[in-house]
Amino acid sequence: MSAADLRSSVEAYVASRQSEIVGELSELLSIPNVAADRVNIRRNSERLRGMLERRGLQAEILETAGNPLVWGERRVAGAKRTMLFYAHYDGQPVDPARWKQASPFQPVWREGSREITPQGRFQDDWRIYGRSASDDKSPIVALLTALDALRAAGVEGSSNIRVILDGEEEAGSPSLAPAVGRYRDKLRADLALILDGPLHPSGRPTLTFGARGVLAVELTVYGPKFSLHSGHYGNWVPNPAMGLVQLLASMKDGQGRVLIGGFYDGIPALGEEERKILRAVPDDPAALQKLFGIARTEAVGESLQEALQFPSLNVRGMRSGYVGAEARTIIPLDATASIDIRLVRETPSDRMYEKLLAHIRKQGYHVVDGEPDDATRAKYPKLARVARRAGDSEAFRTDMRLAESRLVVEALRKMWGQEPVQIRTSGGTVPLEPFIRALGFPAIGVPTVNFDNNQHSENENLRLGHFWRAIVTMAALLTL
Amino acid sequence: MSAADLRSSVEAYVASRQSEIVGELSELLSIPNVAADRVNIRRNSERLRGMLERRGLQAEILETAGNPLVWGERRVAGAKRTMLFYAHYDGQPVDPARWKQASPFQPVWREGSREITPQGRFQDDWRIYGRSASDDKSPIVALLTALDALRAAGVEGSSNIRVILDGEEEAGSPSLAPAVGRYRDKLRADLALILDGPLHPSGRPTLTFGARGVLAVELTVYGPKFSLHSGHYGNWVPNPAMGLVQLLASMKDGQGRVLIGGFYDGIPALGEEERKILRAVPDDPAALQKLFGIARTEAVGESLQEALQFPSLNVRGMRSGYVGAEARTIIPLDATASIDIRLVRETPSDRMYEKLLAHIRKQGYHVVDGEPDDATRAKYPKLARVARRAGDSEAFRTDMRLAESRLVVEALRKMWGQEPVQIRTSGGTVPLEPFIRALGFPAIGVPTVNFDNNQHSENENLRLGHFWRAIVTMAALLTL
Repeated sequence: MSAADLRSSVEAYVASRQSEIVGELSELLSIPNVAADRVNIRRNSERLRGMLERRGLQAEILETAGNPLVWGERRVAGAKRTMLFYAHYDGQPVDPARWKQASPFQPVWREGSREITPQGRFQDDWRIYGRSASDDKSPIVALLTALDALRAAGVEGSSNIRVILDGEEEAGSPSLAPAVGRYRDKLRADLALILDGPLHPSGRPTLTFGARGVLAVELTVYGPKFSLHSGHYGNWVPNPAMGLVQLLASMKDGQGRVLIGGFYDGIPALGEEERKILRAVPDDPAALQKLFGIARTEAVGESLQEALQFPSLNVRGMRSGYVGAEARTIIPLDATASIDIRLVRETPSDRMYEKLLAHIRKQGYHVVDGEPDDATRAKYPKLARVARRAGDSEAFRTDMRLAESRLVVEALRKMWGQEPVQIRTSGGTVPLEPFIRALGFPAIGVPTVNFDNNQHSENENLRLGHFWRAIVTMAALLTL
Repeated sequence: MSAADLRSSVEAYVASRQSEIVGELSELLSIPNVAADRVNIRRNSERLRGMLERRGLQAEILETAGNPLVWGERRVAGAKRTMLFYAHYDGQPVDPARWKQASPFQPVWREGSREITPQGRFQDDWRIYGRSASDDKSPIVALLTALDALRAAGVEGSSNIRVILDGEEEAGSPSLAPAVGRYRDKLRADLALILDGPLHPSGRPTLTFGARGVLAVELTVYGPKFSLHSGHYGNWVPNPAMGLVQLLASMKDGQGRVLIGGFYDGIPALGEEERKILRAVPDDPAALQKLFGIARTEAVGESLQEALQFPSLNVRGMRSGYVGAEARTIIPLDATASIDIRLVRETPSDRMYEKLLAHIRKQGYHVVDGEPDDATRAKYPKLARVARRAGDSEAFRTDMRLAESRLVVEALRKMWGQEPVQIRTSGGTVPLEPFIRALGFPAIGVPTVNFDNNQHSENENLRLGHFWRAIVTMAALLTL
């Protein structure tokens, strides 16, 4: 069957069963899924196992130290490969009071801002609102519906299919990588497909080959033991806020390039092929600058996509003394900055942390890991506390030139008759690097939902047109 | 009468009338005196007029646009000069719950931390606790008691005495300078003596010849219109916290010297005589460094006293995004610093503000005075808002080499048989510069109270030994 015929077939299947498909999603969204809610997480996992079994997959619940994983498998005779589809069934915590509906777990439909009761044919622009509508239950339903559609069309792919559904992604997936060791035989595959995240804002089919990691550090520069009158001691007692700004200013140049020694070490120059792919991403920098109200951008890369191929250093917050109505004429006793460093594959967190520490020391600071005592204060002219925050994530990146990468790109290209947007490195961070590393085979992200889905916030939603297209994309992957 | 005899005479007078003297102070402290409390301020002024009249001064209440001034005068035949004594009778606002006594306006006595009921001879180390015990009612009582003691000794000085008591000093003395125009004839003199503030911590007799002024500015650097995900946009959207730190860092070098163009312009080098006087101030920098827990000091001057002869730039507060438990991986939308600039006589506030603005512009910033609109954001790569805060005060400095200055120094030297501590410029700011400028004759500060008096805070107190000595110091001034 040609790609065009297959797509028509899947679309026809979906068109004739809209209510049924959406009904399955809606029922799944009705089960609360905050990771800490053990009872409902268990209900989700049982429901998902049943959903896998109805598609003829051999399905199991895999226990972990945390929330259960849901696993399923379908083997085909003479399979050319095994593909592991990953998604997560837990969702971000909710603050129901901030939602425009009775409960984040009672999905509602809207056309624009108007709530509707779906009747007749579903419109592409309708949206279903509920926690995990986009992040990340709909990709699961899309995958299973694609299996249904292919069976109805009499198409059996040439890959073994494995599915692994995570119940703790929004809590950092602490049990996922350890589970790879325990269930290695069930998770072995040639290629992992990560079904999560939004399409490129252009709406075009999208693939992501990596994501930056993150390291967060809190940096405090100490001044006098108590805040002092700036008149009586200004010009004599060093000001810790000035110390902090001088220290931070030493870390970046005026164009946003990081000056910490070795910060960019080991990162190979982008090849022409990679640059071509980056240039092909249909970003609209002028529109973004207008939206953000900024008249310049930093110079780390020649474009947004290029900038995201490099680690970044970001001051996410600063505090010292008081400003505004509370301001007082004091020399503050300390000054704190919270910093996040985004990582790429060549710059693991431990090494970057050491480089940051070395830079701070090079500026003359004695680094302490707690409040300095009197003896320490008496000894060191410049004192800073550096505290690494929990929750580091390493970056991952799958080489776009691998055969598996080319295969996936080609599958989407053929199915959609259009070049997919290929994101070499997504700027944000997902907690999946330990899992991907433990698996030991290539992983590629396949986002499907609308980018304006309010992921992680109140009023999370899924645009229906994106959902229908997700099913077609899944069919493309299932028939590589 | 020799200075030694005069001192003995005054001390004997005080020793024999301790209860009476302290009783007058205690009664005065019992009248609430927050500047905004018009009713009680009026009661204070009436009481003070009566106290002046009892000493034979011609006394009046001088109405102003704000709180009344209390004025008094005593002329002597063939006077060599006229001296104007200034003090203020209002006090800082109070938070009674934070005081260790029923009311800040019901004075209590303590020996150490133990509350006592004075009996027999008063001990020098006893303290009276109450609002304005030190700041600034006791100097008024000390002055009037010195007049009593001199009359009892049959000593009439050779100066006309004028007294002016301010009822709004803690509110910035807004009505004081304007009153000089209205009541010029009553305030004309050869020399003003400002009875306010604490002795040098060494406890030695102290004179102050100037005080720094202050200019406060709030500086905001703008980033994107709303905070952005630091993963998706870090390395591309400029971070306003980094912009602010680079801007602030450009303002000072690593040793605390200000780099703003012309910041120190017009300040003459210190002469050898002045340096000698500064060196003679018995500061204990090692003890201060130990107390503050700092292992270095800034390099603007060679000593604390020298440093205070120069303007300073102090970051009193900073805010951007979030730190600690609230930290989020965002590019903040803005970053704000609150800055105070201490001024000296050669660096008036308007000129310093212009220099600061010029420096900010020189760093490439377009300066706005409100939230920038979209057109402004689209036009200027670097945007900063600079807001000058209300409440500037200019510096003042009376030349220590004037005849009047030498006369006052000599009076204290003779009376105490000891060189007084001479403070060329006090680091802090008093709101008296407009008053002193309007008077048009030299003004010298004569502090008398203990430096650990909790001025402006809860549990303000006066050490009795300092009070007795204040009376002797006043006698020295009254017999110049």
